[in-house]
Amino acid sequence: MSSTIFIQTPFQSKSLNKSLNTHFVPSFKLPVSLSFKPRTAAFSKRVHIRAGLIEPDGGKLVDLHVSETERELKKREAASLPKVKLTPIDVQWVHVLSEGWASPLTGFMRESEFLQTLHFNSLRLDDGSFVNMSVPIVLAIDDLQKASIGESDRVALLDSDDKLIAILTDIEIYKHPKEERIARTWGTTAPGLPYVEETITNAGNWLIGGDLEVIAPIKYNDGLDRFRLSPVELRKEFERRNADAVFAFQLRNPVHNGHALLMTDTRRRLLEMGYKNPILLLHPLGGYTKADDVPLSWRMKQHEKVLEDGVLDPETTVVSIFPSPMHYAGPTEVQWHAKARINAGANFYIVGRDPAGMGHPVEKRDLYDADHGKKVLSMAPGLERLNILPFRVAAYDKTQGKMAFFDPSRAQDFLFISGTKMRTLAKNKENPPAGFMCPGGWEVLVEYYASLTPSDNDRIPQPVAA
Amino acid sequence: MSSTIFIQTPFQSKSLNKSLNTHFVPSFKLPVSLSFKPRTAAFSKRVHIRAGLIEPDGGKLVDLHVSETERELKKREAASLPKVKLTPIDVQWVHVLSEGWASPLTGFMRESEFLQTLHFNSLRLDDGSFVNMSVPIVLAIDDLQKASIGESDRVALLDSDDKLIAILTDIEIYKHPKEERIARTWGTTAPGLPYVEETITNAGNWLIGGDLEVIAPIKYNDGLDRFRLSPVELRKEFERRNADAVFAFQLRNPVHNGHALLMTDTRRRLLEMGYKNPILLLHPLGGYTKADDVPLSWRMKQHEKVLEDGVLDPETTVVSIFPSPMHYAGPTEVQWHAKARINAGANFYIVGRDPAGMGHPVEKRDLYDADHGKKVLSMAPGLERLNILPFRVAAYDKTQGKMAFFDPSRAQDFLFISGTKMRTLAKNKENPPAGFMCPGGWEVLVEYYASLTPSDNDRIPQPVAA
Repeated sequence: MSSTIFIQTPFQSKSLNKSLNTHFVPSFKLPVSLSFKPRTAAFSKRVHIRAGLIEPDGGKLVDLHVSETERELKKREAASLPKVKLTPIDVQWVHVLSEGWASPLTGFMRESEFLQTLHFNSLRLDDGSFVNMSVPIVLAIDDLQKASIGESDRVALLDSDDKLIAILTDIEIYKHPKEERIARTWGTTAPGLPYVEETITNAGNWLIGGDLEVIAPIKYNDGLDRFRLSPVELRKEFERRNADAVFAFQLRNPVHNGHALLMTDTRRRLLEMGYKNPILLLHPLGGYTKADDVPLSWRMKQHEKVLEDGVLDPETTVVSIFPSPMHYAGPTEVQWHAKARINAGANFYIVGRDPAGMGHPVEKRDLYDADHGKKVLSMAPGLERLNILPFRVAAYDKTQGKMAFFDPSRAQDFLFISGTKMRTLAKNKENPPAGFMCPGGWEVLVEYYASLTPSDNDRIPQPVAA
Repeated sequence: MSSTIFIQTPFQSKSLNKSLNTHFVPSFKLPVSLSFKPRTAAFSKRVHIRAGLIEPDGGKLVDLHVSETERELKKREAASLPKVKLTPIDVQWVHVLSEGWASPLTGFMRESEFLQTLHFNSLRLDDGSFVNMSVPIVLAIDDLQKASIGESDRVALLDSDDKLIAILTDIEIYKHPKEERIARTWGTTAPGLPYVEETITNAGNWLIGGDLEVIAPIKYNDGLDRFRLSPVELRKEFERRNADAVFAFQLRNPVHNGHALLMTDTRRRLLEMGYKNPILLLHPLGGYTKADDVPLSWRMKQHEKVLEDGVLDPETTVVSIFPSPMHYAGPTEVQWHAKARINAGANFYIVGRDPAGMGHPVEKRDLYDADHGKKVLSMAPGLERLNILPFRVAAYDKTQGKMAFFDPSRAQDFLFISGTKMRTLAKNKENPPAGFMCPGGWEVLVEYYASLTPSDNDRIPQPVAA
């Protein structure tokens, strides 16, 4: 179960000191070929070490921003267009699309892309090749909005403050089959799926697809915008560091030393495989998360402490925010998480137990089989170029007094620190076992819980992610 | 809506006279290339007319029968193996698998194939290519059966009369995620899905995959076995007739003149495209169907009359039974219907409105968008080689007194004869408008309804398929 124990709090906008240390390592660009068999893959793959970063899906990164010179013209054009109001989550998707995380998508999905996503988790390109695309990136409108659009072939998209965000062109309006979308994306239609309740249940009965012309880069003005590197900026950063491998770690939880262990261990494995300068993309998700996840601002503070405390090496780590909203759609969503990181230049993707999973909203069980995420990921169409790195479960090793990979032959030596346990400790301002999390990071959590009202703290606790 | 108005009756086992007329046409095997753009496809395709039938998926047809010389040996081996009892629908799937309709599958799906089917509707082969596979072909067992299998790597599969059907080897037992299977296959989890209630709801919590060794060809001894041509036998028949195109028509309803019109029209279009001898595979589904579909035996009698009455040309038509059970899973299932016909040698597939669809079991609407089936089919991975032929809606043209393609510019001239209408007419032994269905075929329907008890006739009528 990848959900965590934490509790909603208003979004914090404190500024962080950027803790990224840049370090130039010697260039290494000789092509080397190594055999690498993913542990969970049904199909063997080979890793080719080669110069340059992995190609984005579709061959080039999409950039949907209008040029500065066009901006005023587009604003004037938009004034006379039918208007569609975006929710904050819609704006996050505009952000995702605008920077090319979903390349080669050029806007909200039309029906052809929507159907391929639902049925095949992939899109066929004109050359017959497939790119992965597992979650629908769609914009819902209601009957009134549809009527107001009439025969127009383009609409202006406004945020909740009526600020012009983008123009959607060459539009296509089609039915929003909510039940089918939910069933095929989540593998359940049980009530209580967070993203569904937030964005689908009360959404309109139509979807509007089209190409985006985004007026200006999306900013949140929450003190964290400078962590929101676009795929282009991340690629530049990796190139500047002469990365010959980029391994991405998606997270939406505080980093504990078990995470740190596996990230360090992954780097060690990549070095053993012949890479000279593997760079970690520590990539917390920054879009919508459910109420009991730790808010982004607190997570970023916690990650900063982890880097400051030297648990992770700043010289080989890039911390950045992934702007996508969270679906909690398990094996379906982990593909999206991986695919978007290809576009950002990652050619290795770390996957753990039950990625993007959560408890079943109605039944007393996890929604997804804990192993399905990595299995589905390793078989997904369009992700053949990505090397999937499943990780072993880490737990607190009492004999060593630190987090270590779980060894089933001496199971009694290990302590699984549940989310409930961690939450109780942090709420009571107690310390976890030494070596579970760096003290600075722990202090952030204690501070976070202290900031919550008592009623917030009464929410049902859930186990913490491995 | 592709469901029909009819009502359950005990399975009839009257014998039919095989009405297939064989006719040798001159051989035509010159390769010719023609451009053909599917009307609904998002991707353009080209049709290449070439010698020989379309290759089966995976390059060769699977045949899972043991040789006659091995049969006794396998029977002795099976005697000492753990036993798994098959339902009649399980036996139908053994039949489907044994003859290679699901090539390259060699038995009930293991978890890797099951997951790929659920998430991608396709299987990746060792060479990196994809074959389509949209419905899970799985065998469920319960906790007790699982316990009785223990560590055995093979089990004997028995039918309900304890007759040995097959040995399943190199088995893999994995969890049966029923809710997820249903949601991802049907796009709903609403109660009342016929196949779900018949085969999944009360099935065991485990699935058992493995390779099949089928003891002897599956026979039903219902007088219709000689219509159950295997893919090998169909391919031989098409070759014997020197077919240079094979167009398949899946159906589970009586044939009316609207169907006949589109089959005739398809042949005309293929001739126009340069084919010299297109052969129609009229391929009624013979496995499990829901209670209110017309039983196979009555449908076969009706099809026979249609051929006898000359509505379809026996010289260019092969009537055979497709042994698959019916899922009623709309856009997901139509892919299976098409893929299986590739294996039988068809390179053209006719698809209509709402293929494999039905009414939503709970809400007052069709379960699937009527256009999604042909759209999904035209974009499905692994079906690129198949030419999809969407058909226009036919209706009764009052000005001509016959079934004709609906012309929206003179909608008032057309009569859509609903299932309710057709059922009421047949029940009351009245005749439909002249030209709706050949008289011999209509008599079969009247006879069928007359054979039903009054209570059967009270079932809720549903619209008839186009």
